[in-house]
Amino acid sequence: MSLPDALSFGLRGILETRLSLTAADRGHHAQSESFHRSGLPDAVAWPETAEEVAAILSACNDARVPVVAWGTGTSLEGHALPVRGGLSLDLSRMNRVLDIRAGDMQATVQPGVTREALNTELRATGLFFPVDPGANASLGGMAATRASGTTAVRYGTMRDNVLALQVVLADGRIIRTGTRAAKSSAGYDLTGLFVGSEGTLGVITELTLRLQGQPEDVAAAVCAFDSLDHAVECVSATMQSGIPMARIEFVDAAAARAFNLHSGSAMAERPHLMVEFHGSPGAVREDAARFGEIAAEFGAQGFDWAALPEDRARLWRMRHGAYHACLALRPGASGLVTDVCVPMSHLPAAVQAAADDIAAEGLIGPILGHVGDGNFHSLLLVDPGNPDEIAAAKRIATRMAERALAVGGTITGEHGIGIGKRGLMAAEHGEGWHLMGQIKAALDPHDILNPGKLVPDRN
Amino acid sequence: MSLPDALSFGLRGILETRLSLTAADRGHHAQSESFHRSGLPDAVAWPETAEEVAAILSACNDARVPVVAWGTGTSLEGHALPVRGGLSLDLSRMNRVLDIRAGDMQATVQPGVTREALNTELRATGLFFPVDPGANASLGGMAATRASGTTAVRYGTMRDNVLALQVVLADGRIIRTGTRAAKSSAGYDLTGLFVGSEGTLGVITELTLRLQGQPEDVAAAVCAFDSLDHAVECVSATMQSGIPMARIEFVDAAAARAFNLHSGSAMAERPHLMVEFHGSPGAVREDAARFGEIAAEFGAQGFDWAALPEDRARLWRMRHGAYHACLALRPGASGLVTDVCVPMSHLPAAVQAAADDIAAEGLIGPILGHVGDGNFHSLLLVDPGNPDEIAAAKRIATRMAERALAVGGTITGEHGIGIGKRGLMAAEHGEGWHLMGQIKAALDPHDILNPGKLVPDRN
Repeated sequence: MSLPDALSFGLRGILETRLSLTAADRGHHAQSESFHRSGLPDAVAWPETAEEVAAILSACNDARVPVVAWGTGTSLEGHALPVRGGLSLDLSRMNRVLDIRAGDMQATVQPGVTREALNTELRATGLFFPVDPGANASLGGMAATRASGTTAVRYGTMRDNVLALQVVLADGRIIRTGTRAAKSSAGYDLTGLFVGSEGTLGVITELTLRLQGQPEDVAAAVCAFDSLDHAVECVSATMQSGIPMARIEFVDAAAARAFNLHSGSAMAERPHLMVEFHGSPGAVREDAARFGEIAAEFGAQGFDWAALPEDRARLWRMRHGAYHACLALRPGASGLVTDVCVPMSHLPAAVQAAADDIAAEGLIGPILGHVGDGNFHSLLLVDPGNPDEIAAAKRIATRMAERALAVGGTITGEHGIGIGKRGLMAAEHGEGWHLMGQIKAALDPHDILNPGKLVPDRN
Repeated sequence: MSLPDALSFGLRGILETRLSLTAADRGHHAQSESFHRSGLPDAVAWPETAEEVAAILSACNDARVPVVAWGTGTSLEGHALPVRGGLSLDLSRMNRVLDIRAGDMQATVQPGVTREALNTELRATGLFFPVDPGANASLGGMAATRASGTTAVRYGTMRDNVLALQVVLADGRIIRTGTRAAKSSAGYDLTGLFVGSEGTLGVITELTLRLQGQPEDVAAAVCAFDSLDHAVECVSATMQSGIPMARIEFVDAAAARAFNLHSGSAMAERPHLMVEFHGSPGAVREDAARFGEIAAEFGAQGFDWAALPEDRARLWRMRHGAYHACLALRPGASGLVTDVCVPMSHLPAAVQAAADDIAAEGLIGPILGHVGDGNFHSLLLVDPGNPDEIAAAKRIATRMAERALAVGGTITGEHGIGIGKRGLMAAEHGEGWHLMGQIKAALDPHDILNPGKLVPDRN
């Protein structure tokens, strides 16, 4: 649908020049980092306050016009793409760090603040915000997709690190969820309900986040294994030993090759683990030594310790650049990224089955992941003009998800549902998926918030 | 209301002898550990399977009869008391540990399994379930109230330690929420919605819980401070230092006296901290030493280290017995227990203001709490036959809650809402409280699940 004239006129009154109907602005808000694309939104709005968001939502609710919130556009499943037109609500101008309370280890931010911008502001405090999905995503978007990343194994996901929210509901009501206390038993966990709701229940206009103290000491290392099996079994054994890993990342031989080509590293073209330890000097020393003993049992070789902060920064920059590095393995290719997460004891078999399946289909598909959580990805490289390859990639992705569900895992550890995973929701949740639809219908009766996503279609 | 004959007949068909209409059984399910009392339920049912729970709820939903789930009756705010009659659904016969998956550090249990029963079963595995509210509560009840306790500062609350649930909805549908994966971004966090919902959204019939490895080393100690101020400021400084405390408990001078009288301890009648450290031997040594340095800055004295497991067991048994020990300070008294939680930087002022207020009202009210989370309690001892004392205790409790809200805290850190805190929900949540009511209405349209609790009354 296109915006009714009356609505356009009303929004212009609220936003003045911060409403655009140009093809360029609309086109920019119909693209994503992954292969997902959508039709154009009818307009793009750049609100600057919660009150503006409330006025916009109230007007769109009255006119039954879809509203899709937009952060930085870095999501991988097309969450912010408008599948039914309407208004793209770009929150990038709500980018102020409102308050840093170092004594409480908390910060309150607007949704358009990016992860890196917050950490830059925090530098002088000795604190940092730990959730790190790689991309320099907006914190509102990270909350909306329940993002996590390399450090979740130690510090948790957005679920664990968002204490409180301000949210604008579909009808324009502004509510606050949660408190600044570390815990609460005061009724339904509304904060937890909005985290991961992908813009379908409300628009997040403010977040209160938990911060962490910079660890007194840090150590990081890379080591290589003879086989995928040995590397992943080492992860299971490490996690079961209780060593408080700050990061423990798996990359397979193909990913190591991509790093070498893209970052100029000189890794053996074999499976690797990339690990980091945070804590007091004694604890880091003990933890690293215990990990070394376990890794040795699985034949780890070529331990390369990143002693200096700049070495560690280079290591994790390389890991975070994996998506683009892997894409470069096949120039012109598009990537379909899978994202399953399984219970730890099933991780070795799950990774091996994925590797076998990719090989059998004849695709290039490096495997890497946040294996301390049981979460791993394959980046399936396909020729976007070759339907057979796209079909093969989708078969692989579906089988990975089905195998994850069969062992009690999930179809998405951290990327979320968006456009790409909605077809698998019934398989994961059964009747619970319909319950999600009931909640959505209660909070957004006219289905204006990111319609066509996450929950079942209404009858 | 009393049970309609047709419903009674139908339930008898499902439950046979596991349905009781006797005054004794009904009376037992109208009492609680605290001063809250309610009218009697009309009947008590003891289901043994989720399918029985589903059949009961479906029948009660059709007949519009309230159903109130019952665990062990140890909650402190009267959550499980029927305020509108109906059926008390006693889950104590659903008490099987269904599955322990040591390699995944998970257990799946029925809701009537108690915390201690699970930990007894886990003994041989080297794992334990960490959430410890003191009372030997049922795990279903702990999930329903989002319980925590002494170890939450390290291991989190029930919110953090429940991975997946089986829940029976008001209309008898049986759903599963969550997965066995460590994290997921697959849609709304239904698990988190049911945890803390106090039986108003569904009846939990199965829980999958995270387990922890027994720490390699443990150290515990008690130390005394000259003043309440110094003790609580030591807590703030300790938490801000990043030492990963496993427990850090405050008890005031009155509580120390209660311990001495009740447990035969010989504590100075001064404020104390009770602390515990978990980790590798080196980490425990370093953490304990760093805590000792911080405590010394605040004038801590008389460090008493509990070196042996039995000494630590005695220490925490004493702490867990605080409720009964404090009650014994005034024979015949009833206790009104407060439960606020505030951001760390506000903790010293909040505890001091509570102490001043209790003194000004002339009541005995020991203060103690899980101060590493900013959570503390006063146990206000009142003569149950003296309306003036009861009114004074309620004034103190309300002012504590108001002061907590004024600094961004919560009216309940871990005890929940039940009967006692419902009057404060609007003050904490504002419009968000009405949103909770909308969710309740969507999931339980006939308001049969623990009606009259948690959410606003329906119009």
